[in-house]
Formats: sequence, C-alpha cells, structure tokens
Amino acid sequence: MTVIKWNVRAGAYYDSVVLMQLQRGLLGLPGVVDAGVVMATQANRDLLAANNLLPDSIAANPDDLLIVVKANADSSATDAIGKVDELLTRRKSSNSLNSQEDFRPRSLSAAVKQLPEANWVLISVPGRYAAGVAREALELGKHVFLYSDNVSLEDEIALKKAAREKGLLVMGPDCGTAIINGIGLGFANRVRRGAIGVVGASGTGTQAVTSHIHKLGGGISHAIGTGGRDLKSDVGAITAHQALDVLARDPETKIIVLVSKPPSPDIATQLISAAMETDKPVVIYFIGHPPPARKIGNLQFAISLSEAAEISVGELEDSRIEHSRLETRDSKSLREVSSLYLRGLFSGGTLAYETMIGLQAFLSPLYSNSPISDSQILSDPLHSRAHTIIDLGDEFFMVGRLHPMIDNDLRIRRMRQEAADPEVGMLLIDVVLGEGSHPDPAGELVPVIKEIREKRIGELEIVAIVIGTDDDPQNLQSQIEQLKEAGAIIFRSVTEAVEYISLRCSRYTPNTYPPVNLEQLKQPLAAINVGLESFYESLTSQGAQAVHVEWRPPAGGNEKLATLLAKMKN
Amino acid sequence: MTVIKWNVRAGAYYDSVVLMQLQRGLLGLPGVVDAGVVMATQANRDLLAANNLLPDSIAANPDDLLIVVKANADSSATDAIGKVDELLTRRKSSNSLNSQEDFRPRSLSAAVKQLPEANWVLISVPGRYAAGVAREALELGKHVFLYSDNVSLEDEIALKKAAREKGLLVMGPDCGTAIINGIGLGFANRVRRGAIGVVGASGTGTQAVTSHIHKLGGGISHAIGTGGRDLKSDVGAITAHQALDVLARDPETKIIVLVSKPPSPDIATQLISAAMETDKPVVIYFIGHPPPARKIGNLQFAISLSEAAEISVGELEDSRIEHSRLETRDSKSLREVSSLYLRGLFSGGTLAYETMIGLQAFLSPLYSNSPISDSQILSDPLHSRAHTIIDLGDEFFMVGRLHPMIDNDLRIRRMRQEAADPEVGMLLIDVVLGEGSHPDPAGELVPVIKEIREKRIGELEIVAIVIGTDDDPQNLQSQIEQLKEAGAIIFRSVTEAVEYISLRCSRYTPNTYPPVNLEQLKQPLAAINVGLESFYESLTSQGAQAVHVEWRPPAGGNEKLATLLAKMKN
Repeated sequence: MTVIKWNVRAGAYYDSVVLMQLQRGLLGLPGVVDAGVVMATQANRDLLAANNLLPDSIAANPDDLLIVVKANADSSATDAIGKVDELLTRRKSSNSLNSQEDFRPRSLSAAVKQLPEANWVLISVPGRYAAGVAREALELGKHVFLYSDNVSLEDEIALKKAAREKGLLVMGPDCGTAIINGIGLGFANRVRRGAIGVVGASGTGTQAVTSHIHKLGGGISHAIGTGGRDLKSDVGAITAHQALDVLARDPETKIIVLVSKPPSPDIATQLISAAMETDKPVVIYFIGHPPPARKIGNLQFAISLSEAAEISVGELEDSRIEHSRLETRDSKSLREVSSLYLRGLFSGGTLAYETMIGLQAFLSPLYSNSPISDSQILSDPLHSRAHTIIDLGDEFFMVGRLHPMIDNDLRIRRMRQEAADPEVGMLLIDVVLGEGSHPDPAGELVPVIKEIREKRIGELEIVAIVIGTDDDPQNLQSQIEQLKEAGAIIFRSVTEAVEYISLRCSRYTPNTYPPVNLEQLKQPLAAINVGLESFYESLTSQGAQAVHVEWRPPAGGNEKLATLLAKMKN
Repeated sequence: MTVIKWNVRAGAYYDSVVLMQLQRGLLGLPGVVDAGVVMATQANRDLLAANNLLPDSIAANPDDLLIVVKANADSSATDAIGKVDELLTRRKSSNSLNSQEDFRPRSLSAAVKQLPEANWVLISVPGRYAAGVAREALELGKHVFLYSDNVSLEDEIALKKAAREKGLLVMGPDCGTAIINGIGLGFANRVRRGAIGVVGASGTGTQAVTSHIHKLGGGISHAIGTGGRDLKSDVGAITAHQALDVLARDPETKIIVLVSKPPSPDIATQLISAAMETDKPVVIYFIGHPPPARKIGNLQFAISLSEAAEISVGELEDSRIEHSRLETRDSKSLREVSSLYLRGLFSGGTLAYETMIGLQAFLSPLYSNSPISDSQILSDPLHSRAHTIIDLGDEFFMVGRLHPMIDNDLRIRRMRQEAADPEVGMLLIDVVLGEGSHPDPAGELVPVIKEIREKRIGELEIVAIVIGTDDDPQNLQSQIEQLKEAGAIIFRSVTEAVEYISLRCSRYTPNTYPPVNLEQLKQPLAAINVGLESFYESLTSQGAQAVHVEWRPPAGGNEKLATLLAKMKN
C-alpha cells in the first residue's frame, strides 16, 4: 500500500534544473517510491496521472509548482514533503561553492560590461520570459541564440524583423543547435572545421548532418540554426535568408547545406531561389518535401539527412566545385523571362503532376487543376493565374469531348488565350505520341505556335515535352523537327524541362536589409549565457569566452507584478 | 460584325468523334468564323463562353447537344445550322463505306461469338454508360481496359471487387495506357519487348517510363494500367495488387516498376509491403510521396519518371538481379516481430520526423505527435496507438522540464510504459551526443533497457540511433558499447534504422483471391473494342485480333426509357 502526499507552491519561479534536482533528491529519500516535481500545466498533470502520481483532489494553476511524493508509508511521504525546502536550499548552497558565483552579473547589461567583446547571447530561460530577454539582447546589438521553446509565433516574427533591421541573427526560438566559428552552441557535436556551411531549421537535423560530415572526413565552417518554424509562411525564413547570405559571402565556406523541418511551400520556393543565386553548390533537404530533381544548376536535392552529408562531402572530394560554379554562371544567363508567367497546357495528367512537383520548388505562386497542395488549387480551370499548369485531360473538360491526345481543339484555343495575356512569357505543352494518339500532333500544333509567336508583342517562349519512341507511328524525329522549326524548345522528359524552366523563370528578390557582419562571425566566439548553466559550462569547456547571468524572472516570477512594473517603467 | 446561331438537340446520344467531326464540318462552311459542338454541361458552357460562343439566351440541359455557329453574316450562320443534319449523315455514310461495317456486332455478347478467343474488352463509351458495359464484360469472363472517365468511385470499387473474385483485371476507369504482351491498349508507345514489367496508376506516367526504358535500350514485358484512383483509400489498389502479383509470377519479368499518381498513404504502404514480398527488384515512384530511402531490400525509390526508367534499366544492365534476390531472401529471415508494434521515443524532433517519412512507407497505421499527414495525428501524446513515434522534445512536454537530451526521466518512464504493452515488439530510441547533452546518456538508459528486457515476457527488441562524433565529450565508442552490451541494436543514421525496421516490421497480408491467369496474359492479345473506333484501328494495326462493336446506348441514349427497360428486364 502506497501513500501520496503533495505540496503546491503558487506562482514561484524555479528553473528546470532545480526542479530536476529536487525530484532526484526526493527519490533518494527513505521510503519514497516515486516523485514528480512539475509546473502544473495540463500536459504535466496528465503525465503525473499516467505515472499514478495525481490524486483527483489536487488543485493547482499552470503557473504553480506541484510537488508529489509517493511513499510506502504515510510517515515517509510526510517526511519527504517536509524536506522540500531543505533540498532546495542544498541546491543553492552547492551552487554558491562555485568560485565564480560572486562575480556573476545579474542582468544582461551588467554582463555586457563584463565581456564587451561578446557578440552572442544564448537564451534558455522559460518560454514566457525568453522574448523579453532576446529583445534586450538585440537592443544591446548582440546576435541571439534562442534555445527556449514555448515562445509565441508573434514574438518570433517581431524579434526576427527587429534583428534583420540591425544585421543581427535570431537563431530560434526552439533552436537546439549551432556551430559558430568552431564553437558549438546548445546541443552541438564536436566536428572538425572545414568548408561546409550549414543552415538548419532543425536542431537534430543539423546535428545528424554535421556528425555525418565529420565521419566522412569533411568539416564545418559554420552551422547556423534558425528554429524549426523559420520556414513557415508567417516567419518567411528571415533567419535562413540571412544565414544563407552570410555563408554565401564567406570565402571559407565552399558548399552550403540547407536542412529544414517541413517548410511552407511558398517559403521553400523563395529560399531555393535565393540559394540558386549564390555562387556556391547548395545541397537541400527539406524533410517531407518531395525533391524536384536530383540536381538543378548549382542545387542538389537530398532525400535524407545522411544523404545531404554524403552529397556535400562528395562534392568537395570530387572537386567539382569549379564545375558547379560554371553551371551557375551559365544558368544565370538564362534569366530573361523571369518577370513573366509560365502557363502549362498538358494532355497528360501525370506529366502535369510531375511538372507541378518540380516547379513548385522554384515558381510561386503556382496554380493548377491538378494541385499538389490546397494552396495551389485553381478555382476556375478556364482562367489561369500567375504560373499555372492545366491538365486538359481532367474529367472536368472531358464530357462529350475526345481526349486532348486525340483532339487538340481545346488546347489550341487555350494556347491562343494564354498567348494573348501580356503577363505570360512561356507556354509549356506536352506532345504524347504512340498508339491511340493523334496521328500528327505537330501538324496541328505548329500552325498555332507560329501564329501566336507572330502576333505576340514581346517575348513568348514555347517549350514542349515530347514523349514517344523511335518506333511510334507518328515518326518521333519528324514531330520534333516540325516543332523545333516553329521555334519550340524541345525536351524529352519532365525532369529536363523542369530544370530549364526553373533556371529561366525562378524569381529572386534581392535582400535590401543590412547584411550580417561576416568579420564579426569569424572572430573568436564570446558569449553571454542566460538560462541553463550547462550551456555556459559547455562554452567555456570548448575554449570560448563566456559570462553566465544569474538570471531571475522579473518580479520573482509574479507576472501580475511584472506587468505592473513594466507599465511603470514605460 | 459577327452573328451567332445555335441549335439544341435534347437527350440525343452522339459519340465524341461525331461531335468533333461535326464541329470541323461546320468550321469548313462558307462564312463560318467559329463553331462549338458540345454536350451542354456547365463546364462545356463555360468553355463556349470563354470562346465568346455562348449568348445568354441559350437554355439547355447537361444531356442536350448544343451546336453553336458564329459567322460573318446572318445568312451564313443560318445556312450552317441548316446543314447540321446533312453533316451528321455524311459522317454516317462515309462510315458505311467501311467494308467491315455490315459484319460488325451490335452487342458485346455478339462480339464474343465472333471472336471467342478475345480475353480483353476495351471500353471507351461515355462515362455514364461505361460501368454497365464493363459489368457485362466481366460477366462474360473478360479482362476490362476501361478508358472512359467520369465513372463514379462506387462503380469503380464494385467493378474491381467483382473482377478480383474472378481473377480478372479492371484497368481503369480513366486508364489511358497499357501494353499487354507487346500490344498497346489505349494510348501506348511502341516499345521493344523485354524484362521490365510496369504497374501504372498513371497513364502518361506509364507512357513516359516505357518510352524512356525503350530509349535506354530496355524493353517491356507487360505494362498494366490501373486508373489514377486505384491507390486511393476507397479502392485499395485492388488492380495494382493483382498486377504486381501476376508480374511477380511471370518468369519473363525480371524487374517491376510501380508508378502512381499521389496515393493514399495507407494504400501505398500496403502495396510497398506486397512489393517487398516479391522475389524481384521493384522500382517505385509515387508522385508527390517523399521517398523513404534510395534502396531498401529489393525496393528502390525513384524521384522522377525518367529516374524510374533509368534505375530499372541500370539494374538489368548491371546484372545485379541475383544480388537483389539474395538481399530479398536475407531480408525475409528478419521477419520475426512483424505481428507486434513499434514505439519510437525520440529526443530529436527532426530525427522523429525523418523516421516518420521513412516508416510511413512500410508501417500502417502509424501515429505521431509530429505527424507528416493529418491521419497520423496521435490525439493523446501520452498514450501510443499501433505503431507510434513520439517526439519527447515537443513543446507539449517541455514546460518547466529539461530537454530529453539532458534529462532522460520522461523517456525512461515512457520506455517502461511501452514495454509493459504486450502488443509492442520493438522500442526505438535516439541517443544524441555532443556539447550540451547529458554527459552519459547510455549510463542512464542501459539500466532501464536491461530492466525492461528482463521483465518482459516475449520478444522486445531495442533499436538505438546514435548521433555523434568520435570527438564528442561523451565518448562515442563507449556509449555504443554500453548500449550494445545491454542488447540494443545500434544504427548511426535514421536511414539505416528505417531500413532495418521496415524489413523487420512491415506486414504483408497475403492475397487470398483467385490469381490472374498468367498463361492467358501471355497468349496473343485478342480484344473486343466498345467505343472509340480509333482504338480498334490501333489494335489491328499492331497485329492484334480485334472486333469493334457498333455500340449504341440503351434506348438510344434516353435515360428515362433505359431505366424503364432495365426494370422490365429484371
């Protein structure tokens, strides 16, 4: 028979290390079978309940500290609860043995005075206080490594926008990992320095990639974390864009790896366009995002963390770098129709789909009647918007009508309609040969291609994907020749066409914000740590200069009082 | 100044070829500027409107034929409308010049008497009649190639279930392409025969893959279409499973390629498990579905149609086939825990995500608090269901608690909880080393691993993904050794762990339906064609035996009458 006793402490602040140590202390007391020391959120109460540590009668608010002890006798439980204060004090006194304790600053501004060369502030205080500390760090002109989670999206956006205006980085919130100039911040593996730079909207993603690069003999210049939400629409990959830009300017970084948790498609597209503009090979792995191709220009797409590492190290070893740079330069000369829209008019549904998969990485906004995601749905299939891919063989068009592989009437009308739109710079069509199809599709399409190209004021490029074999009844070579003669650019697979179009049509909006200072990034890392003391210890053990702030929440964690004080201050 | 005249013909049936020819006939008449001949569905009316061919005043029902003429004078328009009957008659009389016309059967059963060796019926009548014809074909014991679109999902399911019971295939509806025994059905490219079999839930996907295989020097044994909806949950990939099974049994097929439009994840998983059970290399490309890996056992995953072709031809050329077979056999010996569930307890969010991406191809149902799709959402993160992957570093768990990379308390409690569930056969954990993490995670985890393995009745496998470098402060080798000694199986990346788990845990439900007759498939193709005459012509031009049915809808297309007749018949 076991007995449960508990103690609720209203609105007091304790850091997570203290709570863990208190729990372990309680577990070490005689007769104690189990113990829980948690902030009384619903999730934590549920966890206690799952461990049979939550009697029904406990009333506590989410801000309250809840201490529960399960013992094999009533007296043991009572004794244990009675020792809580002593255990908390013991923790404090063991702390004060630390010789540095007396010299520790109690505020960020005091810490800056102690270590003025610190360019970085590591923040791991509880989420509800983290944004305030980060704001203060930015005001002091410091980059922020924001480990804390449970920071609101609004705060994240505001912090990142404020940082961007000053050329500062906010890595996080919920940023687990970074390696700056050889020093790991937060959770980071010890890896050799080298030529591969990493931008990671993903903590363990960055850890897995950098560890694997190290194992394969490669090394890391810098690994810049962004927090897992950076590539969501609301945030707009502010930090990832800054990080990509500074690594692109860093001469010691020869190859860049971009890793992210599932991104918002439009944001992924913008970041990929920016990556395409760099002069460096960029290896991209966006988890859960189907890769558009293996390689397009200077970009390579991986399908796993370990493959991202393997590609980047292989790229270095093969010394293909010069080669890739050349390709990049070539591809830039293709950018002429970039301010105009693409309209794709397909007879093959799967070809339309595969084209969407490929182009969604590069073109935005992109619409279709065979969309990959809901945001791409073209509400009126008869009228295109921005970049559009139409599957003309969709059931919608097919009642009482022959398939567009047999009858081109519908497509020809639509080609004229699209060509009449001055915002359209490229028409993409598929020409599918073989049994059952029209005996001479080029014969029908060529006059229209010629007609719309003649009528057209300004550039209009026609790209055709021709699917067929040399044995097909239509005569593959003659079909291709006719289309080429009319001025169409011919590809034999969706993949090839996607590569061409993405190099030619993707739009990059140049960054007009102050750049992150590269020279500062390359200085020996010095940092101020606010929150988990273990991160301070990790910094110093790696040889970095660091100061730990003896942080306490405003008004001792009493939020009503803190709000009042903040109001009085303003 | 142009004039528009029109004519509405209520409830009459015309096939799409007749409508196209009528429209072309009208366009050839003097003074006619444009013409539209369509069934008056909303989509078609919208299309007419987009071409300025739809005056407001036209009233017509979706079943009505709508003929619109735009001419440069009132008289020309009137004359053109007046010629509609003549143009329709001209079409008929040109038809009757066809010497075969008199011998053509008017029903499927009559056609079967003319060509009893026909094992296939090609159906391309309008969607609303197609299911009825397909049902008749199945009753006559024939395989069905169902080109028609606009067939309901309910009809598709009913037809495929009925076919499966008889060992017959229903390829479609909306099946564009198949190649059976060297003869193309519907839209198909002429490709050499060879050792690569294709299962395609995708018409142009099959065309692109088979054409590219041909271009690369490979050849096709059979390409079996399924219709684009076959891999949706409601249909359950009935045809794809049958097709995979018959190709697996075909000694002339050495490699199988599986291509599909975006599948339902659970159905994709079942089909992948079935592919894993075959003795052959299988190359898989499910459009828009992130590949779980490059290669797992006998399976290879492509990221484009052309890559699927390249891998399959490369596999043949490298004569790696024997090798793959061996791997397949090896992997089968791994299947021991297949009836039990996997529970993954992660400290790394990205590692959890990547594991989900990999395992969702093999394990179903799969749940998580970091799901890839909504159907995987674990509503209560504290209690696992079926196969479950938990990110213990998720914000939900983190209020007032140290990260699981520092404090293993939460994970240890959960490991005990999962191990107590007799349905669990495997625990998967990540152990992330490096700066900032726990100084000795193995030291904390090993006693628990030993404890739960000892307590456990029945098999419980522990798999650990260890992320770290040989320079990390925890001593990578010693961490691995400790975990191994406790009985854990160690991998150094998610990819490797996913490969092991998928080979060990994926569940295959053996097929208990009558198999499709392989010998029949290998006989020279003979077919009955109902619908588009051009498909009949294509069959005979390829040297296949074929009969074309002079099909007319029941009751001349009058659906009320047809319903009445059907009722009287029963």
